[in-house]
Order: sequence, then C-alpha cells, then structure tokens
Amino acid sequence: MKTEGRNAVGELLKTDAKIEKLLVENSLRDAAGRALVAQAKERGVRIQYADRAALDRECPDRKHQGLIAYTADYRYADEGELLSEAAEKDGFYVVLDGITDPHNLGSIIRVCECAGVDGLLFADRRSAGVTETVMRVSEGAANHLKIARTGNVNALLDDFKKRGYWVTGAEVGGENIYRADFSGKCVLVVGGEDTGIRRLTREKCDRLAEIPMYGKVNSLNASVACGIAVFEAMRRRRGF
Amino acid sequence: MKTEGRNAVGELLKTDAKIEKLLVENSLRDAAGRALVAQAKERGVRIQYADRAALDRECPDRKHQGLIAYTADYRYADEGELLSEAAEKDGFYVVLDGITDPHNLGSIIRVCECAGVDGLLFADRRSAGVTETVMRVSEGAANHLKIARTGNVNALLDDFKKRGYWVTGAEVGGENIYRADFSGKCVLVVGGEDTGIRRLTREKCDRLAEIPMYGKVNSLNASVACGIAVFEAMRRRRGF
Repeated sequence: MKTEGRNAVGELLKTDAKIEKLLVENSLRDAAGRALVAQAKERGVRIQYADRAALDRECPDRKHQGLIAYTADYRYADEGELLSEAAEKDGFYVVLDGITDPHNLGSIIRVCECAGVDGLLFADRRSAGVTETVMRVSEGAANHLKIARTGNVNALLDDFKKRGYWVTGAEVGGENIYRADFSGKCVLVVGGEDTGIRRLTREKCDRLAEIPMYGKVNSLNASVACGIAVFEAMRRRRGF
Repeated sequence: MKTEGRNAVGELLKTDAKIEKLLVENSLRDAAGRALVAQAKERGVRIQYADRAALDRECPDRKHQGLIAYTADYRYADEGELLSEAAEKDGFYVVLDGITDPHNLGSIIRVCECAGVDGLLFADRRSAGVTETVMRVSEGAANHLKIARTGNVNALLDDFKKRGYWVTGAEVGGENIYRADFSGKCVLVVGGEDTGIRRLTREKCDRLAEIPMYGKVNSLNASVACGIAVFEAMRRRRGF
C-alpha cells in the first residue's frame, strides 16, 4: 500500500508500521522533506531515489510532494479482540453501516482519531475499505486508530450489547442529539451516504438521535454529520 | 451553470432561481424522475430530451441521474446589503479565510444552510467560488443560503465589528470551543485547508476558539471542523 505526501508519510513514520520502501524525488532539497528522509533512514527503511516523472506515475494525482512510502496492506484490528477490550472498559465505539465513498471513510477515520474514539468498525462487504486513497485522505490517522471489519453489522451490535453497551443510531427522526445520553459503554451507529441506517440495523439500536437542522435542504455530508455526532458525544463524555 | 442529479435539481426547483432549461434523459421512466420533470414543466421551464450519451458529455462524471438543469451563473448576495441586514439583528455569520477546495466549500455551504446560519462570506480571490461542482456537492443548499464575496476579509471583519459583532476565529491554540461565548452578534472565521487563518486575519479576531482533540494526528478535514464549530455555536445559541 502506498502512503503519499508529507503529512501522511510523517504520520506513518510516527507509527510502528513496517515500511518496505520510501521513494524520494531526486530534487527533494528542502529541510522538512530531508528531515523525513533522515527519520526513515534512522529506522532502517530502504530509501530509493527517482525523478519526479517516476513518482507521478506511481501517484497519478501528483499529490506525493516528493515522497511515497510503501507498506504492507492495512492491518485491521481483530473484531474479537476489539470486543474483548470493549468489555473491560466504558468505551466509545463507532460502527458504520454502509459508508461507500473512500473520501468519506478517510474523513471519518480522522474524526474518530481526533476525538479519541476507542475503535471504528464496519462491514467487510458493501463498504469502503482502508485503501491508499482512504489512507491519504485520513492523513495517516488510520495508523493510530483501531479499525476492524465485521461479517455482519447486526450480529456485531448484539455482541456489543451482550457486553453491556448501549447502541445509539445517528438518524433523522430520533431524539435531539443534544439531549441523548452518551455516558458509559456506548456505540454510535452512522448510516451510509444515501441510505442512512438500514432498517434491520436501526431496529438493533436502543435509541436514535438526530442533529437538529434549521434549513431547507437539511442534508449534511456523511463525514460532517459523523463529525458533529462523534464530537457531541465526546463533549458530553468529557463533561464540557 | 449546470445543476446535475435528482437531489440537486429537486432542491433547485424549490427555489425561485431562473432555470433556463432542463435536459432529461430519453429513457427516464421512474415516478420520482417524472415528478421532477412535471414540476419543472409546471413552472414553465423548457424541457429538452436527449439520450444518455448526450447527458454524459455534459456531465463527465456521469452523476446526472438523467437530469441536468441549466441556470444563469450563481447569484451572490451583495456584501453591503448583507452587512446592513446584520446590523439589524443578532445574527450569526461565517467568514472563510482561504478555503480553496470546491468539495470543502460545497460541504461548508451545506453545513451553513442546515445550521441556519444567516450568511456565508469569503474573498473573491484565492478562494473557491460557487461553481457547478460546488453547487452539486452542496446538494443545492447554495440556493437557500446568502453567500457574498468580499474584496478584503480583514476590512469585512472591521465592518462587522462596527456593527456590534464579536469575531471568533476557529483555530488551534484558542480557548476550548465548548466554553467560548457565541451569544449575540457573532462572526465565526474558518481558515483554509492547510494554512488555517492567516496572521493578519487572526489579529482581527476578538478571540480564538479550538476544538479539543485527543488523538495523535489531530487534524480534521476543513469542512468537518467547520461543521463541528458551527453546530456547536448554534447549539449554544439555541440553548441546548
């Protein structure tokens, strides 16, 4: 898997991910770029130099900024381990039901990492996975967040409930999200871009909560809605 | 300007925008699509039928869903009129300082419309403007929100202050946003994707407020950060 651009490569270097190679543009001369290369060398990463055209071929949108790191495919956390961990604490987990756009997934991963969410889970089919695009959009946040895939979102919600979790669906028609209870063991379910939360999954939710809207269009981008809901839950959990 | 796809065309039809033409795919047969065409006919819009290839040529990403509406260029609100309105009420306005990505701008327009913001303003240079892409990403929200351009963001903030407004910059290093005061006449300044709020503009702010972060990467997508800040301000203004 490729990680392109300085922010993303810099974030990758802060993790213990195994980096197989760092491709560096020949003409890279600035201090910030060279510091990243030095960091990579220090941890034993193989450095390979090439001209800009070669990097452009590897990264057709040309957003590499002179640096492309190659790692093994994204390593998901194990669903079972994540559930065992969850049982031991008053955690906050986000479950996605049908997010298919990689830009939204990348942006949601940033939201969850920045908010200090304990883990993010989504189905292994009919959902975006952690691809190179997602990794780049997430600015490397995927490396700092526990992300697991599940065969069945509804069964996963049952597994959380058995461990004492309350499941809240972020959905139009629910109670005002600013009055919903996000304390204790908490799972937030976020629906897909156009479909929202599917019926069977909605029925698994203990309660629904909606973001109050005051306009005429009243539809937020999926990652923005997720950001507002997650940060609201975290605000309350932290007592602000 | 083109408006493509059913949601966006549907939203456009709810406004009083002058629609010059509606291009409809020949094979459009479903009830929802036909209802939109009937609505357009009812208000006197010229309907033109064509095959899918013609619509694909007009809309290279093929997200038209059989419908493309043509309107005159986006009509911005007048900066002076918006300021006069602002003087008369305890309004909440959002000022962007250097958002350049059209997807972020479209998403921010949705945020402002859904939150019931009184107006959105940004510079007429070095900023994304309301293009077709922005219109589509905004799902038509741009038609329901007062958006004005200004020649100089710093002078605009002075103009707001003269009318009794307090200016808060959303910026790392400010006070906790959950404790900031968003009551009364309020302007929220949101910085650009990579640059944040520029120094001179930051100095114009009466105070800075930051979203508390708990991760390692701690950088949110610009439209997500804007969404969290705007909805937090609106939550407090509405007393939730």
